[in-house]
Amino acid sequence: MRDLEERIKKDGKVFEGNILKVDSFLNHQIDIDLLSAIADDFYSKFAGCNINKILTIEASGIAMAAIVAERFACPLVFAKKSKTSNLKSDVYSCKVDSFTHNCKFDVMVSKDYLCPEDTVLIIDDFLALGNALKGLIDIVKQSGASLAGCGIAIEKGYQGGGDALREQGYRIESMAIVESMDPATGSIVFRNQV
Amino acid sequence: MRDLEERIKKDGKVFEGNILKVDSFLNHQIDIDLLSAIADDFYSKFAGCNINKILTIEASGIAMAAIVAERFACPLVFAKKSKTSNLKSDVYSCKVDSFTHNCKFDVMVSKDYLCPEDTVLIIDDFLALGNALKGLIDIVKQSGASLAGCGIAIEKGYQGGGDALREQGYRIESMAIVESMDPATGSIVFRNQV
Repeated sequence: MRDLEERIKKDGKVFEGNILKVDSFLNHQIDIDLLSAIADDFYSKFAGCNINKILTIEASGIAMAAIVAERFACPLVFAKKSKTSNLKSDVYSCKVDSFTHNCKFDVMVSKDYLCPEDTVLIIDDFLALGNALKGLIDIVKQSGASLAGCGIAIEKGYQGGGDALREQGYRIESMAIVESMDPATGSIVFRNQV
Repeated sequence: MRDLEERIKKDGKVFEGNILKVDSFLNHQIDIDLLSAIADDFYSKFAGCNINKILTIEASGIAMAAIVAERFACPLVFAKKSKTSNLKSDVYSCKVDSFTHNCKFDVMVSKDYLCPEDTVLIIDDFLALGNALKGLIDIVKQSGASLAGCGIAIEKGYQGGGDALREQGYRIESMAIVESMDPATGSIVFRNQV
């Protein structure tokens, strides 16, 4: 999506250690016009898939997922993170490795909010190694719901998480796929998705 | 707001210890139609206040704040919570006592995203003792921005946080104000706001 790629080039900041900061428009301050355009694009890609539930994970994916849920006129469920492991029997859960925070955490969704009759679209702002996404996919599987696909704002293509999931047959739609970044020059190269 | 009050009566669950669970439609699974109606109502209450920024706090307020920001066609900023206290000089911050989690945490907003030229509407899903809200108000003050008011979905009126802030002159608009709850019967009484 050209608007997002241009915005990343203009306002994204590249740091050592594969860090791309997009705090000014995606995950601290959020440009709602950009988010609306992204939500419209996800809607056009997944319309006709009978999606009746949007699933995301707290916290920074929630804003985009809410706008997407508005487009699909369906409920949004956000998975909760927990560092305690006193999981209850009434939740679907899995363990996720955090690349950003260098720790493991549990991700939970109440069994009340996903069921075999659901068709789910997973939405998240970032996809790198794909750990969070794999956790959400696992939770959808546990629930017996159908997974229509995953909509991501920014995928770091060079970290391989998205392509590994595509090879397993999952539909992963990313609005911008970063193929390489150079912290010395700040330059960013995107995958051609035409 | 009658729709929200009726929904709380129908699907809210009252537990000992002043706990009102609204996980099925407000802060785990989110009913987007209800959120849209709430956002429309906030828009009509605060239209004409020249609001150019919505401020909320992660995580469960983000969905509502995103839909409200869409109505005002302005950016959303969400304050981040942190348990570490290595605060940087480039953030506004304050300490908040968590009633839910029985701990203190730091709340931060980058200085890049609030400035004296901004007119801010604070949005959150819950208001009880008002600790999180006081923290957000403090951050707005630190930034020199103007505060138009605060829009809350559910206020627990009997915990007094909202009325204390109203007495200090802040405009606090709550879509539903719970005056009393009875965990034995599940009954909930709302403040008449006509």
